[in-house]
Amino acid sequence: MTLFDPGSEDAPSEHTTSEEAFLQALLDAEAGLTRAQERLGLTPAGAGDAVTRVALASSFDVRDLARRARAGGNPVIPLVADLTAAVPARYAPYVHRGATSQDVVDTALMLVAARTLDLVLPEVDAIGASLARLAVEHRDTPMAGRTLTQHAVPTTFGLKAAGWRSLALDARDRLRTVRAALPVQLGGAAGTLASFEAYGAHDPVEAVTAYAAELGLAAPGLPWHVLRTPVADLAGALAFSTGALGKAAADVLTLCRTEIAELREAAGGGSSAMPHKANPVRATLVAAAARRAPGLAATLYGSLAAEDERPAGAWHAEWASLRELLRVAGGAVRDTAELVDGLVVHPDAMRAHLDLTGGAIVAERLSVVLAGRLGRGPARELLAAAARRAREERAPLASVLPEVPELAEVDMAGLTDPARYVGAAGALVDRALGRR
Amino acid sequence: MTLFDPGSEDAPSEHTTSEEAFLQALLDAEAGLTRAQERLGLTPAGAGDAVTRVALASSFDVRDLARRARAGGNPVIPLVADLTAAVPARYAPYVHRGATSQDVVDTALMLVAARTLDLVLPEVDAIGASLARLAVEHRDTPMAGRTLTQHAVPTTFGLKAAGWRSLALDARDRLRTVRAALPVQLGGAAGTLASFEAYGAHDPVEAVTAYAAELGLAAPGLPWHVLRTPVADLAGALAFSTGALGKAAADVLTLCRTEIAELREAAGGGSSAMPHKANPVRATLVAAAARRAPGLAATLYGSLAAEDERPAGAWHAEWASLRELLRVAGGAVRDTAELVDGLVVHPDAMRAHLDLTGGAIVAERLSVVLAGRLGRGPARELLAAAARRAREERAPLASVLPEVPELAEVDMAGLTDPARYVGAAGALVDRALGRR
Amino acid sequence: MTLFDPGSEDAPSEHTTSEEAFLQALLDAEAGLTRAQERLGLTPAGAGDAVTRVALASSFDVRDLARRARAGGNPVIPLVADLTAAVPARYAPYVHRGATSQDVVDTALMLVAARTLDLVLPEVDAIGASLARLAVEHRDTPMAGRTLTQHAVPTTFGLKAAGWRSLALDARDRLRTVRAALPVQLGGAAGTLASFEAYGAHDPVEAVTAYAAELGLAAPGLPWHVLRTPVADLAGALAFSTGALGKAAADVLTLCRTEIAELREAAGGGSSAMPHKANPVRATLVAAAARRAPGLAATLYGSLAAEDERPAGAWHAEWASLRELLRVAGGAVRDTAELVDGLVVHPDAMRAHLDLTGGAIVAERLSVVLAGRLGRGPARELLAAAARRAREERAPLASVLPEVPELAEVDMAGLTDPARYVGAAGALVDRALGRR
Amino acid sequence: MTLFDPGSEDAPSEHTTSEEAFLQALLDAEAGLTRAQERLGLTPAGAGDAVTRVALASSFDVRDLARRARAGGNPVIPLVADLTAAVPARYAPYVHRGATSQDVVDTALMLVAARTLDLVLPEVDAIGASLARLAVEHRDTPMAGRTLTQHAVPTTFGLKAAGWRSLALDARDRLRTVRAALPVQLGGAAGTLASFEAYGAHDPVEAVTAYAAELGLAAPGLPWHVLRTPVADLAGALAFSTGALGKAAADVLTLCRTEIAELREAAGGGSSAMPHKANPVRATLVAAAARRAPGLAATLYGSLAAEDERPAGAWHAEWASLRELLRVAGGAVRDTAELVDGLVVHPDAMRAHLDLTGGAIVAERLSVVLAGRLGRGPARELLAAAARRAREERAPLASVLPEVPELAEVDMAGLTDPARYVGAAGALVDRALGRR
Repeated sequence: MTLFDPGSEDAPSEHTTSEEAFLQALLDAEAGLTRAQERLGLTPAGAGDAVTRVALASSFDVRDLARRARAGGNPVIPLVADLTAAVPARYAPYVHRGATSQDVVDTALMLVAARTLDLVLPEVDAIGASLARLAVEHRDTPMAGRTLTQHAVPTTFGLKAAGWRSLALDARDRLRTVRAALPVQLGGAAGTLASFEAYGAHDPVEAVTAYAAELGLAAPGLPWHVLRTPVADLAGALAFSTGALGKAAADVLTLCRTEIAELREAAGGGSSAMPHKANPVRATLVAAAARRAPGLAATLYGSLAAEDERPAGAWHAEWASLRELLRVAGGAVRDTAELVDGLVVHPDAMRAHLDLTGGAIVAERLSVVLAGRLGRGPARELLAAAARRAREERAPLASVLPEVPELAEVDMAGLTDPARYVGAAGALVDRALGRR
Repeated sequence: MTLFDPGSEDAPSEHTTSEEAFLQALLDAEAGLTRAQERLGLTPAGAGDAVTRVALASSFDVRDLARRARAGGNPVIPLVADLTAAVPARYAPYVHRGATSQDVVDTALMLVAARTLDLVLPEVDAIGASLARLAVEHRDTPMAGRTLTQHAVPTTFGLKAAGWRSLALDARDRLRTVRAALPVQLGGAAGTLASFEAYGAHDPVEAVTAYAAELGLAAPGLPWHVLRTPVADLAGALAFSTGALGKAAADVLTLCRTEIAELREAAGGGSSAMPHKANPVRATLVAAAARRAPGLAATLYGSLAAEDERPAGAWHAEWASLRELLRVAGGAVRDTAELVDGLVVHPDAMRAHLDLTGGAIVAERLSVVLAGRLGRGPARELLAAAARRAREERAPLASVLPEVPELAEVDMAGLTDPARYVGAAGALVDRALGRR
Repeated sequence: MTLFDPGSEDAPSEHTTSEEAFLQALLDAEAGLTRAQERLGLTPAGAGDAVTRVALASSFDVRDLARRARAGGNPVIPLVADLTAAVPARYAPYVHRGATSQDVVDTALMLVAARTLDLVLPEVDAIGASLARLAVEHRDTPMAGRTLTQHAVPTTFGLKAAGWRSLALDARDRLRTVRAALPVQLGGAAGTLASFEAYGAHDPVEAVTAYAAELGLAAPGLPWHVLRTPVADLAGALAFSTGALGKAAADVLTLCRTEIAELREAAGGGSSAMPHKANPVRATLVAAAARRAPGLAATLYGSLAAEDERPAGAWHAEWASLRELLRVAGGAVRDTAELVDGLVVHPDAMRAHLDLTGGAIVAERLSVVLAGRLGRGPARELLAAAARRAREERAPLASVLPEVPELAEVDMAGLTDPARYVGAAGALVDRALGRR
Repeated sequence: MTLFDPGSEDAPSEHTTSEEAFLQALLDAEAGLTRAQERLGLTPAGAGDAVTRVALASSFDVRDLARRARAGGNPVIPLVADLTAAVPARYAPYVHRGATSQDVVDTALMLVAARTLDLVLPEVDAIGASLARLAVEHRDTPMAGRTLTQHAVPTTFGLKAAGWRSLALDARDRLRTVRAALPVQLGGAAGTLASFEAYGAHDPVEAVTAYAAELGLAAPGLPWHVLRTPVADLAGALAFSTGALGKAAADVLTLCRTEIAELREAAGGGSSAMPHKANPVRATLVAAAARRAPGLAATLYGSLAAEDERPAGAWHAEWASLRELLRVAGGAVRDTAELVDGLVVHPDAMRAHLDLTGGAIVAERLSVVLAGRLGRGPARELLAAAARRAREERAPLASVLPEVPELAEVDMAGLTDPARYVGAAGALVDRALGRR
């Protein structure tokens, strides 16, 4: 819950990254660790169950744990104390056995990320579906293509929507790949798994495999306490996804402008004093998210250069940055889903704006045809003069083209119809929709 | 309260930037606005008081407000509804009158920043005082100067501490300057103050002045809704301060290493399984903060390029980023204060390490003296050979220097005493301590 | 010279940060160092002059130096070798004497920054002057105030220009402050100035003062080899300035849009195939700069946490980042100067757009007046209905307001004239122009 | 060539990203475009060849082009003019036909990236090979595992090297994936390929396929002028790689410290005045690169949110940022290759340091054994007391353990031998080396 960020507020990703959710993930990591050891015969029967049974976040005082985490700089130290006290005495020795704090924090962060992505990915799918609908429906809806803020040549809204969708699918693919690879972390004090050997494990690597199986995460090739690929990959996929959705938001913000009004959000934010306003609130919040993600990802990429077997700072810088990035990305996904689900399209406005440049929007096409008939130089001159006149007189370009014999049989009206100069837009939409 | 960041947990800056604190700041901004208008005779007598009396965060449902903030993308819209309902009906029209949501959010953010800095600045002063003590006490404590990880020439711990202090004072100066300039924001819907004119203000600019007076913030030269200097200046000062404290932390982390152990944190974090550990937890958390601040500041600098009279995204990206940066910086200040207050210095270890290079640490001095007597080339050769021998035989440099007539009367022991080659370190400490 | 960045290409800041310029600055730093020592009587007469005379970048092979810089990781090591070879043999011992590579690199970076800012600051002044002219000329030119992409209430172009100017002055102030404080760096191998003592300086701190005097830079309170305030302050001021100019660029980009066309760049970039295009190229390049500066500044802020007496990485990360940031900022200043110098303003288009919402743009004012006469609730209802009708019928709001007795004598035409609802815009412009 | 960054100086990636290399890539993009159209029968025979023959960077004036690029904000406009003038008149109309500037710039950037990665990837392979050798050779070389700067438990240098290698392989995998997907860009003025239709292409999408075939790049699913996945993916892979290599550099910097000296760079940078120094220059430069990459990547991720069919700023911000990031990453790869190729390992020093804590480094193991015999509480007390005594008396832990009957037959010497407490380190190395 936060007043500071309506974009992440109350999104699924906010709940999966809450204090309670992190605490539960820490507890799940601890319980899974004991169960994994029981599975390998390293604990008395029942130990895993005993820890699992008490490992409920609601039984612990998160505020008190957060405060006590200050002393050693991580929450696992006080948590292990409280958890140990909560299990029946005969199982107490099997709480956190063999592990180091980092094993538990890292595994919990991966659980948090996994649970977040498991809710986020279906929303990304929903975005893709909404955008597919828009692309199909507006496959042939012409609108102005704009470059450097200026009308360039016509395009279609279908192609625009198909482009947004392709970015959403790119995001989906990157998030899925990262999600599937999220690993447990288990290495003991310095990543050698020596403690598990001390506790009698025949092959300590099996402890890692068993741990992964208990928690439904991947088993890493090596303990990754200082090989931060999983965190950096999350950074990349989340920053990518937020930025990719930011493209649609940027377009919506432009196309919702009072002067353009080719799009409108279904539930634009109003203003009591200004009843005419229909603020594109969802797009605004996505745009804000897209501005925040890169800086957070930069911090996480920076933490790759982690010295020793546990760095003094690089690791600690990750936790809150990753949490915030999960929220920012998760919020952007949620808001984009709402945005594209109810996006109102105004084909009439799109069509009308195609005439704003007096037909110059198809000047490119004309220049090709004219050049074929008049030669390149003369064609360019003729066209430039006509375009100037059309703009000055606010007249259609076709109407101010001089009557030149070479152009006598040209279908000038057809040639200057912006709606008929959309190139391969339709074919590109079809092609793009073929991607699943 | 957060398990994700022991560095900011429970610091004063966490409390001044909490949801409740922001809500209270929003309410204070609203109440101050009504009082300011009453001051100018624009409301019935008692309106300011009436709003002020009910403007208590505890009377409002922050969770509910956060959720309702989603619709319009900012928390002021639902808050004004609830606040209006809370004041006596006859004063209801004077709640939020003339203002736009941004006026209230921006003013509240400045209040939050001001209240945070008012608690942070005395801690920065305390850091400066602790470091002054260390600099005085160790003005003449020799230690190895290290460059690119290698011993270079001797320095003193006093000079190091004086350097840390000078950074802390730089931070203090920048934070103070920014604090003093934190302004109220008041401009109405698009920054023209037109609404105040409509409500009868003779000179709407007076409303700004009155508003500033009510809230104890500065009166801006212009409404700054899209002139984000105050936020960018906060970004700079906070990123600077965090980084500046990160210098001391980086040094402490190095000097606490098991192999070096010239410093020790008073209350190093322990480990139950590894009783010999004395983790430099405070320095670790400050180092983590110094890694996080730049990315957050980058987002805020990016928001300067804010289009229109209220940007769609750049503004919204600021709120949570500024909050997080205040917390990161405030946490770093708190942890540095703890760190330097109880820092344990081991002059013996410092002295012992000066001999690690077999006297080569004063090779620079020797080369000056030898060059004066033997000429540059011969001096360099002689010295290089001696240094090699000293290192190989782990013998003091002085003991392996060949007996050359030219060096007969040189006080070789004195010349190769690292403790006597600290240059102007003492004078520099004195000079640095002269800065208040 | 670079094809990769038309924004920084050929700007003054590109030339002052070129390889040759840096080489010259390194040589100036070396020559100044010898002169300073001569001034203190530490060298034979003529040494300073002898070094200065040969310290010309054009006499050295910058490409070769760059390659040889790889071995030790900095360009001073090979440069000192070449420079020493270039001076008459009797003065050779006085080249680089007492200094460490970092002294020379840091001092040279400050010279580069100083020379850049000395060219950039007058351009910032020119920007301020152009914007003052625009603000005066358009003090009372009404236009739509836009928030969250939607028309809100009217403002004036003069107020917008005055706001841009206030940001330019903020940039100027920050750049000036930083420029004035740019210091020489002199500390010797580990910042103690011990070498200067070895070479016979009575008070080594005098060497710093003399050095500063020779180079026209400030004398620092302490050697700042690892107290990176000057670099961080540059980072902040340059990122601020670039972002601040980015605000004007963002507005220009919006207001140049084909559909809006309230502004036009004097020399918009054209397109041969699309003769109607008038791309806002200058604003585009400034916007690009504003996107690049924060990331570069973040790297520099990150380098504050510099371990030891010379960090292994943090320092080296600064050089190219600072160079790039000087170029990005300098380019943005140059392009903004060109942009605002010839900005074409279309008051007619501004005026015409004020009617786009059918008068709803003054709904705020109406709601105040109506509420005063009908009560708040009824006023709101009446207004909402009228606004809806005006929008649907594309009719002026005044024309669709129902005839209610309470509003009989109201001057509805005046009240709904957007040009007469600009509040204190004129007064704010006057006030803002009072700032020099 | 640059004095500002010895890390990127003269690396393969510097040459592939030079002005001349970019110019050549732009020319290759133009020539490929004409050839592709000839392939589709859209030009007279020989056009492709004619353009290709003159498309040599050395024939064009890069400095002049860079300057003329200012007017329109991109280098293609002047380049097309010069290139058109250079081809025989009859082929002139087929230069750049149908394309927009962005098609050529984007395709050229991809060529630059591809050529860079094609040189970088073999170096990454070489890094992997060197690290495999180190891991094999030191599979069983024990050393202190360090966490939070403190000795924790033993590990092996082989495991450390295997970890570095696994990061290098992660980098390789990410770079390879990105390299294989680098696409040509072809869309025409607004991404619809309309111009190609106008010029007679039956299926304009074939033009894209043919273009990709000519240039050896991938054919994109859609024109990606504003779907910046390829650039963002490069950002991620390059930032990842630089950071991943930064991990090895961070370890080397620590382990090269004068007090630790377990590693040494083959060709450490020296210092004339300080002959004992062996600066880890390669690691320093890699560490600097790892600090710079995240901010550059952040800018590129930020450009994903690109409005319209060509954004005004986001696109332009990419070029120089991508170039710089390619250089930073390429330099880091080159320096890491040099670093690990000649890394000198001192197993003796590693072994010696294992005794620094008086055996406490194996306290974890002891606590397991003692707990099994004495019970957890008594074991902990006994151990804490012994550890304290060992530290104070600088005696081996084994020698100060009290003689307790329960421990009579324990092989205390073996149990407290750090070299025999490396857990699964060897097995993990073997496992890691299995990855190819």
